[in-house]
Amino acid sequence: MKLASLKHGGRDGTLVVVSRDLSRCQTVGGVAPTLQQALDAWDTVAPELELVYDMLNHGHARHAIPFEPKHCHSPLPRAYQWADGSAYVNHVELVRQARGAAMPPEFWTDPLMYQGGSDSFIGPCDPILAASEDWGIDFEAEVAVVTGDVPMGAAPAACEQHIRLLMLVNDVSLRNLIPAELAKGFGFFQSKPATAFSPVAVTPDELGAAWRDGKLHLPIVVHHNGALFGRPNAGIDMTFSFPQLMAHAAKTRELEAGSIIGSGTVSNTDRSTGSGCIAEKRCLETLADGQPATPFMGFGDRVRIEMFDAAGNSIFGAIDQAVAAAGGGVPG
Amino acid sequence: MKLASLKHGGRDGTLVVVSRDLSRCQTVGGVAPTLQQALDAWDTVAPELELVYDMLNHGHARHAIPFEPKHCHSPLPRAYQWADGSAYVNHVELVRQARGAAMPPEFWTDPLMYQGGSDSFIGPCDPILAASEDWGIDFEAEVAVVTGDVPMGAAPAACEQHIRLLMLVNDVSLRNLIPAELAKGFGFFQSKPATAFSPVAVTPDELGAAWRDGKLHLPIVVHHNGALFGRPNAGIDMTFSFPQLMAHAAKTRELEAGSIIGSGTVSNTDRSTGSGCIAEKRCLETLADGQPATPFMGFGDRVRIEMFDAAGNSIFGAIDQAVAAAGGGVPG
Repeated sequence: MKLASLKHGGRDGTLVVVSRDLSRCQTVGGVAPTLQQALDAWDTVAPELELVYDMLNHGHARHAIPFEPKHCHSPLPRAYQWADGSAYVNHVELVRQARGAAMPPEFWTDPLMYQGGSDSFIGPCDPILAASEDWGIDFEAEVAVVTGDVPMGAAPAACEQHIRLLMLVNDVSLRNLIPAELAKGFGFFQSKPATAFSPVAVTPDELGAAWRDGKLHLPIVVHHNGALFGRPNAGIDMTFSFPQLMAHAAKTRELEAGSIIGSGTVSNTDRSTGSGCIAEKRCLETLADGQPATPFMGFGDRVRIEMFDAAGNSIFGAIDQAVAAAGGGVPG
Repeated sequence: MKLASLKHGGRDGTLVVVSRDLSRCQTVGGVAPTLQQALDAWDTVAPELELVYDMLNHGHARHAIPFEPKHCHSPLPRAYQWADGSAYVNHVELVRQARGAAMPPEFWTDPLMYQGGSDSFIGPCDPILAASEDWGIDFEAEVAVVTGDVPMGAAPAACEQHIRLLMLVNDVSLRNLIPAELAKGFGFFQSKPATAFSPVAVTPDELGAAWRDGKLHLPIVVHHNGALFGRPNAGIDMTFSFPQLMAHAAKTRELEAGSIIGSGTVSNTDRSTGSGCIAEKRCLETLADGQPATPFMGFGDRVRIEMFDAAGNSIFGAIDQAVAAAGGGVPG
């Protein structure tokens, strides 16, 4: 089934069930007013939402309205946890190679993961607000899962059953703030502003054979200012599966329902697939030519992140955003 | 006014207003069933809660029940953000000195802050669960504020008006997991398990003259296995005030209502006040004797964190916890 949150209705928006073809949707206030409330009581709520989904897909939903991604917030407009892994280790290796740093071998066996801010996401079609172009504004095209309750110490095999939904992510990053922030030793904070997610979150069964081994085996398609930027396959070169990332996150504490666990920038060793972020492209340019050529995003620049099924239909709807100046923001 | 969340009633507990002397409390379901809901609509809800608080303090509340901290969850049982600063820079300097590392001078002007997990806190009297004593289990006695909505880019002076509540914190830390995790460069994750907060959160006006300059000028009293461990004054040697920490957190993104911003371990340069965490005491022992003498916490060990007003009354109630073995946990 496919779920989204319309913006109206308060801080958590209004949960809607969306038809498989993304054409129509229906509110389900009598079942679960918000997605977090659905996740809080998933076992009882999900079957009722499935009934609505079936009716929508068969044209029998009596109160369906057109589905408009621009009216959507992220599926969880705010969440209790957003933990982002870096599961495409070849990307990490490449970034380090470009700055002349070796990668510790344990990066292939022990996942990198950072705790992100989750109190206030931005909608999939909302502007990326930044006060300065000098911050080095970049997108990161990722896949994420939304979990149920995961007990502390759960092994990967046990984690897989707690995956409730999948979404696409634009993990907005401020590249020029990262070096000084990471040098302080406490990880990202200011360099990771508000994140955006795809208009629609889908249950794993929607993905058919593309969902296997805890990975989503489809290309994530990224356009930058209207031109194809990359279409790396999210199922290829993913060193750590989602259940492995969840087990890492749950090693010393439980994860509560509605936790979002991200994959990190999708990246393939086959460089012909392009990149999921500008930083990676700049690394490849640096390795080839001694310096980067592609600038980071400026005010007005756009990014579009989407994924299609075998028949060419958009699965999650598109993240489609432009960078804009925050109050008092000035071009770099 | 003083607020708490009883455990019953669901994942967010049940909001109660607590009398100033912490003896009685009253549910306010008709006003705001949970603390997050109160924070989401603070300007309209707070005056109604104040009326209940006045009645409680004057013995006129008709449905008051005894207030029992052991029935409390943390005031926000789960939150959308928990960002912890390290505002007592002398503590950072000491820790680095003990391991022979110099401290970058910008640490005195640019706050350290990490994004903590906020999906699942533990109650103030609940056990600290750990799978192994080898993790190096430690407490950290801190103060935190709960914010309203803070716009992106807000200056410290503007942030102060958005402080809604103050609480005490036990920022549980797994010291032996920290070095390897920080070496990976993405900050804390597994080394910071679930955090606990004081039974009661209070509005700044409850603190009288002890709340000034964006700091709480009272000792935080820490007992370890029944013995006084430290009573450093939270208003002394706090290099960055709460409004400064909030402005740091809000530099590149807004903070949504209910965000928790922590001070970091309270620490005074006057070492006679003792310490707010075992790690600091071990650093002092290392500098004095070449090696630490105080072990980290084992299963069954206890910590109590509290703060008293000038008349000797507990302001927030006590965080009072014992370490216990998580499922399958074994002594070190």
